[in-house]
Amino acid sequence: MRVLSSEVKKHVGQSVHIEGWLHKKRLLGGLTFINVRDRRGLVQVVIQDKAEVEKLRGLQVGTVLAATGTVKEEPRAPGGAELHDAKLTVLVPVTDEPPIEVDKPIQHKAENLDTLFEHRVLNLRNLQEQKIFKIRAAQLRYIREFLTDHEFVEIQTPKLLAEAAEGGAEVFKLDYFGQEATLAQSPQLYKQMLVGAFERVYEIAPAFRAEPSATTRHMSEVTMLDIEMGFVQNHDEVLDMVGDMTIHTLRQVYKEHADDLKSLNAPELVITDKVPKFTVAEIHKKYTAATGTDTTQEKDLIPDEERWICEYARKELGSELVFATDFPVEAMKFYHQINPEDPTTVLWGDLLFRGLEIATCPLRENHYDKLVEQMKKAGLDVDHPGYKHYLQAFKYGLPQHGGCGYGIDRLVEKTIGLNNVKEATLFPRDINRLSP
Amino acid sequence: MRVLSSEVKKHVGQSVHIEGWLHKKRLLGGLTFINVRDRRGLVQVVIQDKAEVEKLRGLQVGTVLAATGTVKEEPRAPGGAELHDAKLTVLVPVTDEPPIEVDKPIQHKAENLDTLFEHRVLNLRNLQEQKIFKIRAAQLRYIREFLTDHEFVEIQTPKLLAEAAEGGAEVFKLDYFGQEATLAQSPQLYKQMLVGAFERVYEIAPAFRAEPSATTRHMSEVTMLDIEMGFVQNHDEVLDMVGDMTIHTLRQVYKEHADDLKSLNAPELVITDKVPKFTVAEIHKKYTAATGTDTTQEKDLIPDEERWICEYARKELGSELVFATDFPVEAMKFYHQINPEDPTTVLWGDLLFRGLEIATCPLRENHYDKLVEQMKKAGLDVDHPGYKHYLQAFKYGLPQHGGCGYGIDRLVEKTIGLNNVKEATLFPRDINRLSP
Repeated sequence: MRVLSSEVKKHVGQSVHIEGWLHKKRLLGGLTFINVRDRRGLVQVVIQDKAEVEKLRGLQVGTVLAATGTVKEEPRAPGGAELHDAKLTVLVPVTDEPPIEVDKPIQHKAENLDTLFEHRVLNLRNLQEQKIFKIRAAQLRYIREFLTDHEFVEIQTPKLLAEAAEGGAEVFKLDYFGQEATLAQSPQLYKQMLVGAFERVYEIAPAFRAEPSATTRHMSEVTMLDIEMGFVQNHDEVLDMVGDMTIHTLRQVYKEHADDLKSLNAPELVITDKVPKFTVAEIHKKYTAATGTDTTQEKDLIPDEERWICEYARKELGSELVFATDFPVEAMKFYHQINPEDPTTVLWGDLLFRGLEIATCPLRENHYDKLVEQMKKAGLDVDHPGYKHYLQAFKYGLPQHGGCGYGIDRLVEKTIGLNNVKEATLFPRDINRLSP
Repeated sequence: MRVLSSEVKKHVGQSVHIEGWLHKKRLLGGLTFINVRDRRGLVQVVIQDKAEVEKLRGLQVGTVLAATGTVKEEPRAPGGAELHDAKLTVLVPVTDEPPIEVDKPIQHKAENLDTLFEHRVLNLRNLQEQKIFKIRAAQLRYIREFLTDHEFVEIQTPKLLAEAAEGGAEVFKLDYFGQEATLAQSPQLYKQMLVGAFERVYEIAPAFRAEPSATTRHMSEVTMLDIEMGFVQNHDEVLDMVGDMTIHTLRQVYKEHADDLKSLNAPELVITDKVPKFTVAEIHKKYTAATGTDTTQEKDLIPDEERWICEYARKELGSELVFATDFPVEAMKFYHQINPEDPTTVLWGDLLFRGLEIATCPLRENHYDKLVEQMKKAGLDVDHPGYKHYLQAFKYGLPQHGGCGYGIDRLVEKTIGLNNVKEATLFPRDINRLSP
């Protein structure tokens, strides 16, 4: 019966059987010490018997083995105990030395990232690296819990589309049984249509963007959380739902994964019970006054403003989360709702976290006639078959609704304090990388 | 403050405000009765006042409205109460009659399915239809709970691949910044690679198959649950994990959604604590003896055998879930493990539920040398860059492992007792359908 690393200490004085990967081997005072890795962590094993030591001759890190030995308390060993008088069974020998070391603290320097991704399969055997993805999985779990509690129905919408209906040139095209199809950039149109059925829906799924760029912010395949909710009274209701969900998720992960976050040098969490909101105009004004760089004529936020306002809110309001709201109407998409109280702006808010936009949260235009007008104004062909079913949803009644497109990779990146969204992704894709 | 339909009865004697869609309108004894739909169900509203009735003139099902009225108990109304003396506010008028009715019991006759999918956006406003997708979401939740409890780490693997590395001609191809890429048919190679890191992983994600068919079993985009677990002693450990997960999920959904399943005419659940196992040879023998049709020379199960063995197990063993194991070696894929005790078979089991294969659960060959040999035998080029990282994982040590590819759409279909996998899918895709 296999005992996992974290359970070994409970068996002091007893003989236990462990299985895992040879993670480290060293000689000390005539004894051979090995670390065995399993899904919970490491077990230190002391091998005295020469015949046992001999079994490891020529074997490298990664060798899959079983060990049986007596558990002794040892405060210096991982988990506070180690195996003595161990008998080994080599299950899968590894004879080649791996091209990268897997037992070192992770160092994600920008210049090393490409090597890291090239050896991702082995790099992920690093226990520190694994923590990133266990935190990621936990965050997804907390998000789903929150959304289920708030009556959002999980949906799966198609990624193979007849048309690049949402617009934008940055779509991947493919041949679909002789017909041209595109890969979904987002479930935008589908989630809006489904408000008419379920009122509240969400999806966590891959989204595909043929962006010919290789920045720290972009990938050609991302994991998006899409939310949409109907019967909202105003934009704030949408923003607060997304804000509260984020606060819940961050608080949970900082509570449940405190040790892992600490060992990854994640920043201390500074948030309040509500995400503070600033209009884009306010941010321009504040930033200009504080830095002397005049952004008041800018339409969008410049990246340095995103950093600055998060830093400002952290210091002044105790929140690293900020909503930037009321984007200028020039930046609107056809499905956005123009602010009825100020038609120079749209009811669209970006959620910023530690200097990075992680979600876009607009209110939608839900009146058929107005939507058709906005589509025409945006130069779209409303008779195009790609819009037929979308427009049908509005024609037969959609309540006021809003939601968000939320970058899961970005959330994980910023939670841990990484510098590149790719570091929060198992197998990142960009213009330069399509494998592993 | 909006009161949801299921809460109305708690407010008998009080005035409440509801919001939703006009779902039905009828005249009875000089009074106008309307049903208002929201995300929880229906509220019946009685409108006496002529001016209020007038507000609905010319308005059709789908109209978004608010109603304020006094709650009276009424056993014949949905939820056991209705609103009286209602005042209406039309939020979004619908003036066109919808092309399909949404307040009827669902009738998924094979010949109607195409019309149903063409009007899917409106069809999903049918409360019965919605139950299918609420059950689907619940099943996904129970699956994730089970897997989290068993220490599986949720992963997201890329859908854009450099090569059709798993083999098979049925892949979609696309242009990836000037390079040829394919869409993932499954996360097969990635989940195996990740066993080397996390031991136990799972993913729920779309998978893409360019199968030029339009059957009741196949779609070109499916939702797959992929599981992989390392350090297993034998094939049974994998089968039991997948079997136990399925039993957990079915018992949960039959417990928590009993009323919905009943109203959808779902079959009664007949399962035991362990999924029974039969070898393919045993099934051939039993089927031949029982039906007189000789299948003992067949390599695979024929569809009628899948139905027959599930029916047999239901009657004889009280289980509609069956594992068919030990498939003939002729059917093997390069990554399967040949049965060491009988090299004419592979350690591969199919999970059948109510006559349909819902999951494929093999044990993998985990020794680098043997795997390379099997790949060569299968005619694959082991030096192809598409296999580089996959083979690296084995070269540097992978324990014995196995898992499954599990069709979520098929699970939902059979849970509810539908006849076509597309009925369990929001927006199905096949050779004939790429929209909505």
